[in-house]
Amino acid sequence: MADTIFKKIIDGKIPCHKVYEDEKVLAFLDINPLSHGHTLVIPKEQAETLDMLSKESAAAIGQVLPQLCAAVMKVTGAKAYNVLQNNGIGAHQAVPHVHFHIIPKIGGDGLGIVWPTKSLDAENGKILADKIKANL
Amino acid sequence: MADTIFKKIIDGKIPCHKVYEDEKVLAFLDINPLSHGHTLVIPKEQAETLDMLSKESAAAIGQVLPQLCAAVMKVTGAKAYNVLQNNGIGAHQAVPHVHFHIIPKIGGDGLGIVWPTKSLDAENGKILADKIKANL
Repeated sequence: MADTIFKKIIDGKIPCHKVYEDEKVLAFLDINPLSHGHTLVIPKEQAETLDMLSKESAAAIGQVLPQLCAAVMKVTGAKAYNVLQNNGIGAHQAVPHVHFHIIPKIGGDGLGIVWPTKSLDAENGKILADKIKANL
Repeated sequence: MADTIFKKIIDGKIPCHKVYEDEKVLAFLDINPLSHGHTLVIPKEQAETLDMLSKESAAAIGQVLPQLCAAVMKVTGAKAYNVLQNNGIGAHQAVPHVHFHIIPKIGGDGLGIVWPTKSLDAENGKILADKIKANL
């Protein structure tokens, strides 16, 4: 498999505006931001989607997200933000290497969300929850 | 502060369709799903937004996300999905207790995303990355 742009950034073959790095995680600015401060947080481990990532790398990302979010908000002055992680082309994933977006909401800038809810009835909810539980 | 609906679910005062629970984390089905299998993953720790959550709770959530995502995808048959975490009313947060959405993309069902990108020039990128780094 050819290296993704994120693998090349991890390897230092392509530069980035780095904001954080540890043994398992790298964070840098998105060069096509949705808003000022839009930051990407990625595992150094190569995994295409979150379900394929090791729990160690996923925990390492989780651990640094609060601090990264706080710093991005402080610097940008944003009062609201979204953390988004897309998996699969059908879900808007552009680079096949796990990445979490931290996207400040500043005025009209930021992530646009369309939220067409349905409802879950009690019987189907129970059946579905039991099935997911059985697959953990 | 009055208990949120999620705090009441954690305390067992309101029922949920539970799919996972450990010492720090609870996962259950969203009763107003965007698609079949829409699941919420929350910390038991009370924190309104991700930047205010302890790194221990955030790591615990990160750690279970891959397995939860894999199970939700397997049961629903979805090939793509979004993980979304909203902070602040301006960013579509409805309950003031940190929650990660796992939202399968199934045909037209799922999260609707609007992605109006801008560009980041090298000079401003460097200044911004340095500022965020300095605030970590």
